[in-house]
Amino acid sequence: MITLASDFGSPYPAAMKGVLLGRTDARLVDVAHDFPRQDVRAAAFWLREVLPWFPPAVHLVVVDPGVGTDRAALAVRVGDHALVGPDNGVLLPAARALAAGSDEPNGSGEEADGAGEDADPTREAGGPAVEAFVVEEGDPASSTFHGRDVFAPAAAAVHEAGVAGFEAGDRFAPAEDVVDLSFPSPTVEGGTATGEVLVVDGFGNAVTNVPGGVLAGRFGTTVRVNGEPVPAERTYAAVGAGERLVTVGSHGNVELAVNRGRGEAAFGVAAGDRVTVAPE
Amino acid sequence: MITLASDFGSPYPAAMKGVLLGRTDARLVDVAHDFPRQDVRAAAFWLREVLPWFPPAVHLVVVDPGVGTDRAALAVRVGDHALVGPDNGVLLPAARALAAGSDEPNGSGEEADGAGEDADPTREAGGPAVEAFVVEEGDPASSTFHGRDVFAPAAAAVHEAGVAGFEAGDRFAPAEDVVDLSFPSPTVEGGTATGEVLVVDGFGNAVTNVPGGVLAGRFGTTVRVNGEPVPAERTYAAVGAGERLVTVGSHGNVELAVNRGRGEAAFGVAAGDRVTVAPE
Amino acid sequence: MITLASDFGSPYPAAMKGVLLGRTDARLVDVAHDFPRQDVRAAAFWLREVLPWFPPAVHLVVVDPGVGTDRAALAVRVGDHALVGPDNGVLLPAARALAAGSDEPNGSGEEADGAGEDADPTREAGGPAVEAFVVEEGDPASSTFHGRDVFAPAAAAVHEAGVAGFEAGDRFAPAEDVVDLSFPSPTVEGGTATGEVLVVDGFGNAVTNVPGGVLAGRFGTTVRVNGEPVPAERTYAAVGAGERLVTVGSHGNVELAVNRGRGEAAFGVAAGDRVTVAPE
Repeated sequence: MITLASDFGSPYPAAMKGVLLGRTDARLVDVAHDFPRQDVRAAAFWLREVLPWFPPAVHLVVVDPGVGTDRAALAVRVGDHALVGPDNGVLLPAARALAAGSDEPNGSGEEADGAGEDADPTREAGGPAVEAFVVEEGDPASSTFHGRDVFAPAAAAVHEAGVAGFEAGDRFAPAEDVVDLSFPSPTVEGGTATGEVLVVDGFGNAVTNVPGGVLAGRFGTTVRVNGEPVPAERTYAAVGAGERLVTVGSHGNVELAVNRGRGEAAFGVAAGDRVTVAPE
Repeated sequence: MITLASDFGSPYPAAMKGVLLGRTDARLVDVAHDFPRQDVRAAAFWLREVLPWFPPAVHLVVVDPGVGTDRAALAVRVGDHALVGPDNGVLLPAARALAAGSDEPNGSGEEADGAGEDADPTREAGGPAVEAFVVEEGDPASSTFHGRDVFAPAAAAVHEAGVAGFEAGDRFAPAEDVVDLSFPSPTVEGGTATGEVLVVDGFGNAVTNVPGGVLAGRFGTTVRVNGEPVPAERTYAAVGAGERLVTVGSHGNVELAVNRGRGEAAFGVAAGDRVTVAPE
Repeated sequence: MITLASDFGSPYPAAMKGVLLGRTDARLVDVAHDFPRQDVRAAAFWLREVLPWFPPAVHLVVVDPGVGTDRAALAVRVGDHALVGPDNGVLLPAARALAAGSDEPNGSGEEADGAGEDADPTREAGGPAVEAFVVEEGDPASSTFHGRDVFAPAAAAVHEAGVAGFEAGDRFAPAEDVVDLSFPSPTVEGGTATGEVLVVDGFGNAVTNVPGGVLAGRFGTTVRVNGEPVPAERTYAAVGAGERLVTVGSHGNVELAVNRGRGEAAFGVAAGDRVTVAPE
C-alpha cells in the first residue's frame, strides 16, 4: 500500500500515480492533495494525525517549497512503515507518531497527561526506531516537479524492495542529518494554558496545541478563552446552532469551534495566533 | 467494496480509510467528501441519486451534525447492499432507492409517471426489505470524530461479516425506530407544477423536486418558470451559450440551467426556493 | 486499469464509478474531476501532460459541453492505451502524446529542440497509430449525463473486450472524421519567443506554449517577459518568497511563476493572454 499526500491540488497527483502504477501494483490511497500550499508545518500536523491510523504502508509526501534546490530527498523507515519526501521536516512528526504506536494513536486519554506531546519522550518508549536515508535523485526530468520525477519513483522503489530492507539497493544512503520540525509547546500554569492555533480545519475548527487535558473536569462549565467566557463541551451539538464552544478535537487537543458554523471566524483567530484557556 | 461519503472535506476521510484498511482488504471507492457541511437533506438527495448505480457494496456515510450526542449509529441492509451511518435520516432515501432496483434507477421514463417518487409505493414493489440495526458504539476514542471511531469500524465489521448476516455478531441490535427523511412533494395541477429547489449542483444547475414528466410534450417550446418564459429543452446545448433553459436532469427531475453557465444565478434561486413550471 | 477525468466536480463521478464497477473489476484511478467547466482546451492540455505517465490503460474522459447533441462518442486506440470520450477534440492531443511514447514523455530535453510540439512530426515517429471508432450510443437514460449513461459503459466495454480488439463488438464503427484540437503555435524569431498562456495551474503558475528551449543558456540571467525584466531560473526557490521568475515547468514549457505565490496574479495574465520572452 502506498499513500499519497501533497499540496498539489489537481491534476498533478495523477502524474505521480501514473509513475507509481508503472512500477508497482500497490494499492494507492490518497491522504490529501489540498494541504495549504507550501505550508510544511500544516502538512506535518495533519500527517502526524492521520498516518498512524493506517496499517503498514509507504507514505509518499510532497510538500516541497524547496523543489529543485539542494535539499535532500528522504526515505524514512519506522517499523513496518516508510515515509518518502523532501528533507524539510514534513516527515518527522508523523514518523515519531508512527513510532509511538498506531492503536488509537491520538486518544485523548494519553494526551491529557502531558503538556506537549513533542516534549514527551514516552511517546516513543518501546516503539521502533526512526531511520532516515537519503535518496539518490539521479537526473530528474524536471527541476519543478520532483513529486513525479524523484519522490514517486523512490516510493515505488521502497515499496518493491520492501520496507524492511529497501536500503540494500544502491539508491539509498544513511542520512547523517535531517531537518526536523517540532510544533510549539504550550505552557500550562495553574489552571491556565497558553498555546497557539496550529491549523484551521475544513469545518472552521481552530485546532490548537493546548492539550485536551486542561478541560478535564470542566466539561459542562464555562471557561475563558482569550479572556471571554465560552462553554466547554464534549460535543459540538451541546450548544445551539451558531454558538461558540471549546472542546477537545479528535487529535486530543483543544479546539475552538462553533456548532454548525466556523470557529475560526467566530473567535477571530488564524493559524499561529495565541490562545489562552483559563478557569472562569 | 466499501463506498465512502461525507462532508469532511480533507484530510479527515483519510483517517477513516486507514481504519478501514487496517480491518479489511475491501476496495474503497469515494462517493464524495464535499457534501454541503452538516446538510443532511442535501447528502440524502445525492446518495439517493448515486448509490443505486453501484454493484453490491457497504456504503459508509458520515454527515453527522449530532456527533457525540445520543443519536444512534445505524447499519441498514437492503438486499445485497448495506449502509452505515448516523440515525438522522441521511441513509433512508438511498436505502429506498436501492430497494427499488438499480437498473437505470432514475430513468426519466419511470419518474415521469408519478408526481413525487417518495409518495410512489411502486418504487419498492417486489424490492428487498429495508432492515435497520443499531450499532453498539463501544467507547469511542473521540466525541467529535465518530466517522473514524464508530462508523468506519462498523462498516468494516459489516463488510467482513458479510451483508447477508452481519447482525449475527453481538454488535448489532434490531432498530425499533429510525429517523426518516423525505423530500418535499411537489404538486401538479392541470399543467402547472409547484415544487422547490432541492440542491444546486457544481455546474450551478438548480435541481428541483418537480418530476420531469411535466415537460413531456413540451420540449422545443417555451414554458413559464416562476412566471417567466424559458425554453424547455432536452439538452443544455440546445440554447446559446449563457442562455437559460429548463430541462430534465439525469435524476429525472426538472432542472433550471444555463448552457455553459450557472442556472442558480440566472434564475435567482437557492436550495429551498419555490419553483413553478407552467404552460406559456 | 481505467482512469477517469472530467469537469464534473462531485458527486457525479461516483455515478460513473458505480456503472464501471458493475461491469468490470478494473482498478479505477482518478486523473481529475475539477478541470475548468466545459473548457475542452484546458482539459486537452492537462490530459496530454498527464496520461503519458500511465502504464497501459483505458482513459475515460468527459468534458462535454455538447452532451445530448449529435456530437459522436469516440473510443480511440493508441497502442496499449485507449481513450473514451466525446468527439470534441479533447482526446486527440493526449492520443498523440501517448503515440509519441511514454518514457519521460515531456522531458525538457526533447521539447527544447522544437518550436512547438504539435508541429513536430518526430513526436509520433515510430509510435503506434491513433485509431478512432464511433461508439454506438444506444438509447441513453438521460440527455444530460452521458458520462454515466454512454461513456462509462463504453469504457467498461473497451476494457472488458481488451484494448487490442475491442472494435470487434458491434458497438464500435471506424470513425471517418474526428474533431481535432491543436494548441496555438508560438513563434520564435531571433531570441524572442511569442506565445500565449495555455492554462493556469493550482499554484497560480501561468503555463505558456513557449518552448522551454528559449531559456537555454539564460538561467541565472534576466530576460524580458512582456517587456519587463524577470529572472530566468531553474527552480522556484532560486528567487525570494513572493518574487517573480520565469522557469521551465514540468511540461517542458515556459512558465510565469512566483516563488511561494501566484504567478498569474503577479504577471497579470490569464489563459489566452499573449506572452513574449526576449533577451534583456
